[in-house]
Amino acid sequence: MEFKRKPKKRGKGKATKFFEVVYLPDEKKATIEKGVTLLEAAGIAGVHINNVCGGQGVCGKCKVKISGSTVADRSKYFSILSKEELQEGYILACQTPVEGNVEVEIPPESRMEGEQILTEGGAVAYSEPAYVERHPQEEAKVPFYSPLTSKVYLQLPHPSLKDNLSDLDRIYRELRRKWDIPVLDIDLDVIQRLARLLRQSDWKITVTLGREPQGLRILQVEPGDTSKKNFGVAVDVGTTTVVVQLVNLVTGQVVASYASHNSQIRYGEDVISRMIYACDTANGLGPLNQAVIGNINELIQRLVRSEGVSLEDVTAILVAGNTTMTHLLLGLEPCFIRLEPYIPTADTFPVLKAAEAGIRINPYGLLACMPGVSSYVGGDITAGVLASGIDDSSHQSILIDIGTNGEIVLGNNEWLVCCSASAGPAFEGGGTKCGMRAVEGAIQSASISDGQVEVSTIGGAKPLGICGSGFIDIIGGLFENALIHPDGKFDMDQANGRLKKTEEGVEFVLVFGKESGTGKDIAVTEFDISNLIKSKAAVFAAARVLVRSVGLDFSAIDRVFVAGGFGNYLNIEKAITIGLLPDLPLDRFQFIGNSSVAGARIALVSNHAFEKAETVAKKMTYFELSVRTDFMDEFIAALFLPHTNQKLFPTVMGRGIAG
Amino acid sequence: MEFKRKPKKRGKGKATKFFEVVYLPDEKKATIEKGVTLLEAAGIAGVHINNVCGGQGVCGKCKVKISGSTVADRSKYFSILSKEELQEGYILACQTPVEGNVEVEIPPESRMEGEQILTEGGAVAYSEPAYVERHPQEEAKVPFYSPLTSKVYLQLPHPSLKDNLSDLDRIYRELRRKWDIPVLDIDLDVIQRLARLLRQSDWKITVTLGREPQGLRILQVEPGDTSKKNFGVAVDVGTTTVVVQLVNLVTGQVVASYASHNSQIRYGEDVISRMIYACDTANGLGPLNQAVIGNINELIQRLVRSEGVSLEDVTAILVAGNTTMTHLLLGLEPCFIRLEPYIPTADTFPVLKAAEAGIRINPYGLLACMPGVSSYVGGDITAGVLASGIDDSSHQSILIDIGTNGEIVLGNNEWLVCCSASAGPAFEGGGTKCGMRAVEGAIQSASISDGQVEVSTIGGAKPLGICGSGFIDIIGGLFENALIHPDGKFDMDQANGRLKKTEEGVEFVLVFGKESGTGKDIAVTEFDISNLIKSKAAVFAAARVLVRSVGLDFSAIDRVFVAGGFGNYLNIEKAITIGLLPDLPLDRFQFIGNSSVAGARIALVSNHAFEKAETVAKKMTYFELSVRTDFMDEFIAALFLPHTNQKLFPTVMGRGIAG
Repeated sequence: MEFKRKPKKRGKGKATKFFEVVYLPDEKKATIEKGVTLLEAAGIAGVHINNVCGGQGVCGKCKVKISGSTVADRSKYFSILSKEELQEGYILACQTPVEGNVEVEIPPESRMEGEQILTEGGAVAYSEPAYVERHPQEEAKVPFYSPLTSKVYLQLPHPSLKDNLSDLDRIYRELRRKWDIPVLDIDLDVIQRLARLLRQSDWKITVTLGREPQGLRILQVEPGDTSKKNFGVAVDVGTTTVVVQLVNLVTGQVVASYASHNSQIRYGEDVISRMIYACDTANGLGPLNQAVIGNINELIQRLVRSEGVSLEDVTAILVAGNTTMTHLLLGLEPCFIRLEPYIPTADTFPVLKAAEAGIRINPYGLLACMPGVSSYVGGDITAGVLASGIDDSSHQSILIDIGTNGEIVLGNNEWLVCCSASAGPAFEGGGTKCGMRAVEGAIQSASISDGQVEVSTIGGAKPLGICGSGFIDIIGGLFENALIHPDGKFDMDQANGRLKKTEEGVEFVLVFGKESGTGKDIAVTEFDISNLIKSKAAVFAAARVLVRSVGLDFSAIDRVFVAGGFGNYLNIEKAITIGLLPDLPLDRFQFIGNSSVAGARIALVSNHAFEKAETVAKKMTYFELSVRTDFMDEFIAALFLPHTNQKLFPTVMGRGIAG
Repeated sequence: MEFKRKPKKRGKGKATKFFEVVYLPDEKKATIEKGVTLLEAAGIAGVHINNVCGGQGVCGKCKVKISGSTVADRSKYFSILSKEELQEGYILACQTPVEGNVEVEIPPESRMEGEQILTEGGAVAYSEPAYVERHPQEEAKVPFYSPLTSKVYLQLPHPSLKDNLSDLDRIYRELRRKWDIPVLDIDLDVIQRLARLLRQSDWKITVTLGREPQGLRILQVEPGDTSKKNFGVAVDVGTTTVVVQLVNLVTGQVVASYASHNSQIRYGEDVISRMIYACDTANGLGPLNQAVIGNINELIQRLVRSEGVSLEDVTAILVAGNTTMTHLLLGLEPCFIRLEPYIPTADTFPVLKAAEAGIRINPYGLLACMPGVSSYVGGDITAGVLASGIDDSSHQSILIDIGTNGEIVLGNNEWLVCCSASAGPAFEGGGTKCGMRAVEGAIQSASISDGQVEVSTIGGAKPLGICGSGFIDIIGGLFENALIHPDGKFDMDQANGRLKKTEEGVEFVLVFGKESGTGKDIAVTEFDISNLIKSKAAVFAAARVLVRSVGLDFSAIDRVFVAGGFGNYLNIEKAITIGLLPDLPLDRFQFIGNSSVAGARIALVSNHAFEKAETVAKKMTYFELSVRTDFMDEFIAALFLPHTNQKLFPTVMGRGIAG
């Protein structure tokens, strides 16, 4: 299930020529070498062009129009654009090397992710997982300095001949009067300003404390009482999507959330192709690192601007990501993750100054990363365990995290096992004709009945595309209505005005152009369905192999936590119908949304939770699926709706859908 | 006993003019504003001109000749130069503002400290204190990682599918297999290079570990086995003198030692005047900080060059200094040390990257500073306690550290008290006509008998001047021979060809010009003797007040450790004769040399010792002499040879010297 691709090589030994590319409507410009693609040049110009396949010419999301004939148009060789689109002058930016000065017009649907939706403030609300509800009680047990950083207001006694402690010891003494802190440390530049600051503030100061392995570090001393202004950022760095939450570290509450595409996508759609880019391209790590740091900085900027928070008051950031994403974020070479025996540079990461990693918050602020388990089960999954509370319960639970990678954790408070399978980007809106992320305008649910289709979009806007949860609903609905066969092919015998034959094959139109937000039909193709079936098969097969590897059967699982970037909604029943989730009673399921960012937030506000994550990461046993022969068998068996072994889905079969 | 001086103010509002100053014989140049003194310009040109009074025009050490009439000569207003010197064209560089382009010739005696002696490798050997001898046994008890930094060679098992720990955890596991290390940490930039380095070195690496409060930090990972190449530097930053020792951290042995003047001296001769400069001059802290950092860097450069050690292999530096020196070294404002209630910014200091403080060793190397007790009892004294072993013994001991400040520690393994008095620079060769530091050519001992004088110099060279131990011998000898009265005035009734009346008063010639290394008479003046009496009185009074403050008498003291920058030699008997040291049996005394650098070295090679120093610093009780009325009484009573109360010196009196 790995989507490998070779890094592009450019011609060597030719004389270098430079051209100017202007992107409309914003008139942003890039000066680039001959041969650079329009998509790459857009990155240089700081222009976002939609693109989920990593520039492979297969997603068709980067279509643009150009003026000037100085661009070699190779897009005709790709079947992804329709005849109409080609006639209208569309080309694929990713497949078009620049061969002269050129103006590029980006149509709305090719820029909606980066510009239209997100810039206009389409904050996404995420489901609160079970653990978060329990959190306040947990918190009561842990000492005051539980967040990654905390601020405390101190009124120090004035020094005298009888009380002549040094300035620093005066602060240490006051802190230790309040709390039992084994080790206190401080940075040189903070001490350097201490003497004057204490006297100018009449010994009334606010101290920002940062978590250290055995104690606390004084990160900052401010005059007066600023203890009520302390914020942190929880981040989920997904392969496809970056999600940030601004958290008030005084109250523990989420102030706002934003999300954007992971800009690394221009270097490859999945972790494998990004590793190849990072390791096989000269200085390939730099652009990947800068891409995600840029995403995070941009999202933080938007958070603080929209909420009127000063960047100075953001003193902590806690990031959860898979192992490759965390490596790229920290500038660690991910080269040996990909090669047997699959060794990451690190699974646990020291707490850093955020500035060291290039992240712009308070210059003294800290950056922590969730600890991971192995090369293919990272901090995002540890975060998911934290958020689901699996490890707190004596019940046997399974966590299924559905994203570009599907990660599964099984266990209870005594043992935990996990595995990972590459699922591709279909659940996040990639690799499909009208796919998009779960943001405003995305069809997140759909019902199909008697040839009628009803859709609902995020934010209630006119539909722009289909996100992961929408696809599950649609394919489930098509299958329930026998409009597709178990192999995912359309039943062409059924008379239905929505079934359309195009040059690219058959597609099912959900929303006709006159009703859509793009003016074009929103449809699912047989190719889309085939992609989604592959993705769901990978996830289901991984879960089944893991459950069986510990001698259990799905029926022994008490609770199923389903996580993923599906916005607020996932129709569990439909997910069972298509064979993504096991056929268990619905009351055993809980959809917990983006459990990675939720776990990051929990670890951000609670040191106790962060330490628990470290324990979880150490205790989890990783199963490497690529060396298991049964995984490929299970995968192939799952490439049907719901499954080749229908006995595994008695409820679905009982509804008389297929067979 | 404070030598205060106002910082110089330069005219404002005038048009700025720039002139060039050329220093001969080296032809070094400085371009400076009108009004800058020749001494200040020398600092800018990187030329060392001897100067111990901090540019106050009283030590006469900075005399130079100039060509060109564009310099306002104000030195005639100062009585320090002889009529002959003025006739020969000498002026005082510190008192001569530049008013045009000028060439300056520096005579040998004005540049001998910085250029002649030290550049030619006049390493000074220091006495090894008692503790150092005991050290190897102590060391056996403490774990392997006892030095501030240590290197360890690891051959890591190759990773496999069954042993798939991350690179970092593989190193951690190997370290923990060998030793029980509670907390391990690492810097980001070291992790960033890890993956490639491990594989290129075939998993054979040397890890440099640094001491942290609760564990160790990996500072550096090198390919192959470099574990035998690890060096540290122990430093004593004295107010007048900076001493460095290169220590082999594998064997614990001292490789070489060097010393130089503390260049801060151009901003003031004692800590008080330097604090005033740092705090009352705009950006005054910067030059003081850079001066001492420059000294240390220069001395380290000389150490590594002379010993053929790579700077990369110097991974640690441990500095002992008084509280003001440590503040200036770390760039901490020393402004409130000087003002009641005398509060330093810090008494304990975090372990830093040496590079953070501007110190050039291995870029990952660490800098630690000895913890101090109060504003006037600093890390140099904690180091002295460590070196003398006072706190290990049930005997009552006193440590008398004689330098620009005189610090006294009294106690045993149960209690420790301490105090400090400003003694002035006389014991380090400052504030006297022919004074110099204890380097090659300095008269370190002298005997006077029947009008005959015999002197011996450090290194056996022709005498260039008199260092502290020489002064003690000379004044003791003059007093024993009744050539001076108890008030320090010469007995002019005695016929002695060495007693000479000059414009500046009476002086006693030790070495006539034809036998000296400078071609000029080497003599002590009544002014010199008066200075030294003030210095010895301050030290003795401080010791007596401290002993009495705990209800004891000198006779109850079992051991007297005498420390100070006297080179290898101090005549204890003569020091008793002049009333510097108490009149106790000679076998109770031990001269331990520079105990500050010795203690720094002990703490550098032994974490156990460093932690002990922290305990010592916490447990020591500081007596502030400035608020005690009995100190001034004791000081005045001690302004005679040996003392106004002759009963305190029965042995001296018994020899029938005075009275």
